[in-house]
Amino acid sequence: MTGRSLDPVRRARLVLSRIGEPGDPRLTGLVSELGPLAVLDSLRSQPEQVDLREALADRLAAADPEADLRRAARAGIRFVTPEDDEWPDGLVDLAHAPVLHERGGSPVGLWVRGRLRLDEAVAGAVAVVGSRSATTYGADAAAEIGSVLGDRRRPVVSGAAFGIDQAAHRGALAARGITVAVLACGADRAYPSAHAALLDYIADVGLVISEAAPGCSPTRVRFLARNRIIAALGAGTVVVEAATRSGALNTAQWAAGMSRVLMGVPGPVTSAQSEGVHRLIRSRDGLLVTSGRDVLEAVGSAGEHLVSQDGLPSRPRDRLGFEHRVVLEAVPRRSAATSRSIARAAGLAPARVTTILEDLSRGGFVERSRDRWRQVASVLGG
Amino acid sequence: MTGRSLDPVRRARLVLSRIGEPGDPRLTGLVSELGPLAVLDSLRSQPEQVDLREALADRLAAADPEADLRRAARAGIRFVTPEDDEWPDGLVDLAHAPVLHERGGSPVGLWVRGRLRLDEAVAGAVAVVGSRSATTYGADAAAEIGSVLGDRRRPVVSGAAFGIDQAAHRGALAARGITVAVLACGADRAYPSAHAALLDYIADVGLVISEAAPGCSPTRVRFLARNRIIAALGAGTVVVEAATRSGALNTAQWAAGMSRVLMGVPGPVTSAQSEGVHRLIRSRDGLLVTSGRDVLEAVGSAGEHLVSQDGLPSRPRDRLGFEHRVVLEAVPRRSAATSRSIARAAGLAPARVTTILEDLSRGGFVERSRDRWRQVASVLGG
Repeated sequence: MTGRSLDPVRRARLVLSRIGEPGDPRLTGLVSELGPLAVLDSLRSQPEQVDLREALADRLAAADPEADLRRAARAGIRFVTPEDDEWPDGLVDLAHAPVLHERGGSPVGLWVRGRLRLDEAVAGAVAVVGSRSATTYGADAAAEIGSVLGDRRRPVVSGAAFGIDQAAHRGALAARGITVAVLACGADRAYPSAHAALLDYIADVGLVISEAAPGCSPTRVRFLARNRIIAALGAGTVVVEAATRSGALNTAQWAAGMSRVLMGVPGPVTSAQSEGVHRLIRSRDGLLVTSGRDVLEAVGSAGEHLVSQDGLPSRPRDRLGFEHRVVLEAVPRRSAATSRSIARAAGLAPARVTTILEDLSRGGFVERSRDRWRQVASVLGG
Repeated sequence: MTGRSLDPVRRARLVLSRIGEPGDPRLTGLVSELGPLAVLDSLRSQPEQVDLREALADRLAAADPEADLRRAARAGIRFVTPEDDEWPDGLVDLAHAPVLHERGGSPVGLWVRGRLRLDEAVAGAVAVVGSRSATTYGADAAAEIGSVLGDRRRPVVSGAAFGIDQAAHRGALAARGITVAVLACGADRAYPSAHAALLDYIADVGLVISEAAPGCSPTRVRFLARNRIIAALGAGTVVVEAATRSGALNTAQWAAGMSRVLMGVPGPVTSAQSEGVHRLIRSRDGLLVTSGRDVLEAVGSAGEHLVSQDGLPSRPRDRLGFEHRVVLEAVPRRSAATSRSIARAAGLAPARVTTILEDLSRGGFVERSRDRWRQVASVLGG
């Protein structure tokens, strides 16, 4: 954690995390395209980045990543980047999702408070979001869903706000499940302050994470950027109550944009807090769910589409998702290749490819020999 | 109305209406296939109808259609058949809908109490159905929908039962709209008896109709048969509240089977009376609606798909529904043909073809010269 031992890519991401606004699509787009080192370099020198550079000049001059890391560590917070093993697969989709309200792209890094590995803490997670001014009806529904998910070891991701968010977190905690709070302010801050104890508890048994650097206050753009992280971390997003202009509908838009399972809990047609949810279901963007059980049914169990009951692929290749097919195509049949070379051939992030190779291995499509992978000759001649 | 003046087809339908159970698919199927005269004849003589004949023998011996008509007339009830001008188009679809719970097919006739023409009373109608043991929440929602439909001159079709049905009828009546009650017992009877005054009022300003002959009591199979008439008469069906085993879901099945717009009003997930509706929406069979306004939007206005704002077809032929295209193909381009010969060529019921020809005429596709129709040369070369 000293200046000398800090990896240059990680250091560049730390600087970018401190100086950029969360989800600024100019910055996240450049980082995805050129990598953090080149972006930082171009911000310092290239005339074509003059607009962005001028906007960030003061922050850039003041950035001190080593000090940031030290301060964060004192608050129990670490910085996790796409180069780390624990970077969750779900975030990869953000690089390709459309920009909403001038926010978008893959975060340059996430600040994480808590002991769990980030990828493990969100494995099979479901996002549960909704109105701050929830009714007791909505809060009860959110708590029931949180508790059923927690009971089935499916992490609950939410935003720690009043109302639905709080009820969902508490439902998961009551069932001794894992829950992850994604904040719009720094992970060292408690917003809302009334939830300081709740956030401490979540950090203790789950995780509190933020794209914003420690010390940052929550602003409107940071809420909008935060919503995309919540949607990306969930296999699905449930909207429990939302008036027609609720921020929860922004999270829903993100979920739909990334082809996540989007769900809504109906309520009385006389309740303004259910109006936004009813629109979501009425437009057929959202699936109606009435309980945690419905939610479980809608999101399915992770990986179950890959392998049939008896452990053999029931319909090889046809049943694979797009990324899995791309990776499988990139695995040699006769020779064997490292995951890094397969990732190059597939044009996907190495960490993601490693996970997919393990999925494919469980499905009987590929096999590993030491650090190399090859395709398994199909019994069906595929 | 005397024995001498009674048309033989109408007489045969009267007998079949008296002796058969409503929606007995053996009987309705035969009538569609062979016509009422041949069916009655085969019931009297053909050995292959032995099962049906034996089942109906006693009733057949006792049938007295002339007396039936006289008795009905004294109760203000007339018998309407597919040969009558006022037979509604919507009922035609029943001949092709799947059989449900051993009920199905086009009714051999309908007993109608009230002064309005049947086809006019159900033009653009919407069926509003639901639980007998409705909550005040559900009854309020049904009344609001009934009232908005009534206000917009869209008839409300329902079953005059306690709960949702009653609220829907009353909503329409309060808005001085037309409402039609379809009964499982004879149209001369009041079921439930507590609704005798309501039924009198409906017969006064709308219609009370039944497939069952006057005097018949309501039985389980007659309710199941009745539900298909409600669904067929509506351009769409709204289910307001329904527990998971509610009869309203049977009506919903009929509506879906005839490609009607199927709608459901959500409610609290904690209410058993909304459970069936939530399943309907969750399965994507039903569209979520929250108000009469949503219902109007979902069913659209009759014929609006045919003609664009300026009165010219915006996309000739492509925008026509299946039946309209079939009829249009059957209309000659150079010569002209009667609607009866067009109906033969199209393989559709004459009454339906007449309506479709009028639609097509308004859309500028065909023109009438005295009693013959020809295609209009398209300005787009179609």
